[in-house]
Amino acid sequence: MPEADPGGVRSVQRAVDLLALYDAEHPSRSVRELVTATGLPKSTVVRLVHTLEQCGLLWSRGDGRTVPGPGLLRWAELARTTWQLPEEALARLRALSEAGGGESVGLYVRQGDARVCVARHEGTRSLRHVVHVGAEMPLWAGAAGHVLLSRSDHAAVTAVAAQGPDPEGAALLWERVRRAAERGWSVSHGEREAGISGAAAPVFDAEGRLTAAVALGGPTVRFTDEAVAGFVPALLDTARALTALGSIGGTGR
Amino acid sequence: MPEADPGGVRSVQRAVDLLALYDAEHPSRSVRELVTATGLPKSTVVRLVHTLEQCGLLWSRGDGRTVPGPGLLRWAELARTTWQLPEEALARLRALSEAGGGESVGLYVRQGDARVCVARHEGTRSLRHVVHVGAEMPLWAGAAGHVLLSRSDHAAVTAVAAQGPDPEGAALLWERVRRAAERGWSVSHGEREAGISGAAAPVFDAEGRLTAAVALGGPTVRFTDEAVAGFVPALLDTARALTALGSIGGTGR
Repeated sequence: MPEADPGGVRSVQRAVDLLALYDAEHPSRSVRELVTATGLPKSTVVRLVHTLEQCGLLWSRGDGRTVPGPGLLRWAELARTTWQLPEEALARLRALSEAGGGESVGLYVRQGDARVCVARHEGTRSLRHVVHVGAEMPLWAGAAGHVLLSRSDHAAVTAVAAQGPDPEGAALLWERVRRAAERGWSVSHGEREAGISGAAAPVFDAEGRLTAAVALGGPTVRFTDEAVAGFVPALLDTARALTALGSIGGTGR
Repeated sequence: MPEADPGGVRSVQRAVDLLALYDAEHPSRSVRELVTATGLPKSTVVRLVHTLEQCGLLWSRGDGRTVPGPGLLRWAELARTTWQLPEEALARLRALSEAGGGESVGLYVRQGDARVCVARHEGTRSLRHVVHVGAEMPLWAGAAGHVLLSRSDHAAVTAVAAQGPDPEGAALLWERVRRAAERGWSVSHGEREAGISGAAAPVFDAEGRLTAAVALGGPTVRFTDEAVAGFVPALLDTARALTALGSIGGTGR
């Protein structure tokens, strides 16, 4: 097998990017739509679609449109068995939501330079923070981001900050990350999206490695200093309970 | 963007093959295990793992082992919304299982040179045919394979037969495929696995294109000619009902 394969990384990334164009608003796509959305030459898109079909990641419906392929069904099962939390952990997320006055609770892990929601309990308030499992968010913004970066060094945090919109953001992010590391939790207001606040605490694995951040999220108007002080103890309790339960990302299996 | 990317297809296929090494028995893998399982050089595996991590398809647990990544959670959602059958269609599969004396029912689509189970209703007998959603099976074997090939020409069927274990299998497969096309259903005994029989009928989309095969599967000892003759009407009824309902692979969306 030849060692030289400079296109490997790019090809896989491109295939993943192409699949990311299918969503609830675009459950099926034509080659023309994919060409427009990617800006790639038609010949490249055709070849990529063919490859993805061969792998089962796309499926030709026969009407000139492709849909996410049945091969993803096996991956869905893999994702479920890896990331499904035990009932006891889900009960903890629910309890935190209640202790937080009905705000939404999310569990985030770091994935490259992003954070991904891997579990959640949706709040009960009519104005609530809605995040779907699998949703990717930037690491440079939000309380969960600060917590997930709290063991990273200055250079790493600066690199993450460089992906944000503010060229001056590195110093501010570093300060927030240091604060999260020192007091063991973080709060944020409108960093990612105006009007949304969050409070997060770290979850560790059995060997003490930082694995995830558990966060309460809701409208900034309800995240007053007083309210935050009120639910931080429950947040820290939940983070400790999740650490004790383990099993995030199939740990221990 | 350079047009020449000869490694593209191979890289994506290799990435998919690597992910396929994670399953219920192997929920996590070390690089050493992946090297052994793939036969690829360590440097290639390391680069591939890094790429998959960047894309969120693998996740480093921190203990030197990787697990299917949180990026798959989004794909799981895509697969679910694309392939989830409406309740009415699932009720049809259940009713067919009952009409078939409690045998298992599966719905299969073609994916390249394989067939994939995209929905099922597990039978109630203690000896039953168990197939998981997402499972891939060869196209050259079994009643569902005959049905899925029933609109293919001789050359295409011969090419599929060439993937089977029997070099003389092409003529036999062509005969079975022709028979399935003529009478609109097929039955098979022990073609894929000794002792397992199946009976299948075609499902079409609104434009009359062959989309799927619905099949009853169970032990050969219960698939006597008499028993098959007894449940073929229900099988054909179910296939017609599924055709009328549409929605396989997100058709119509």
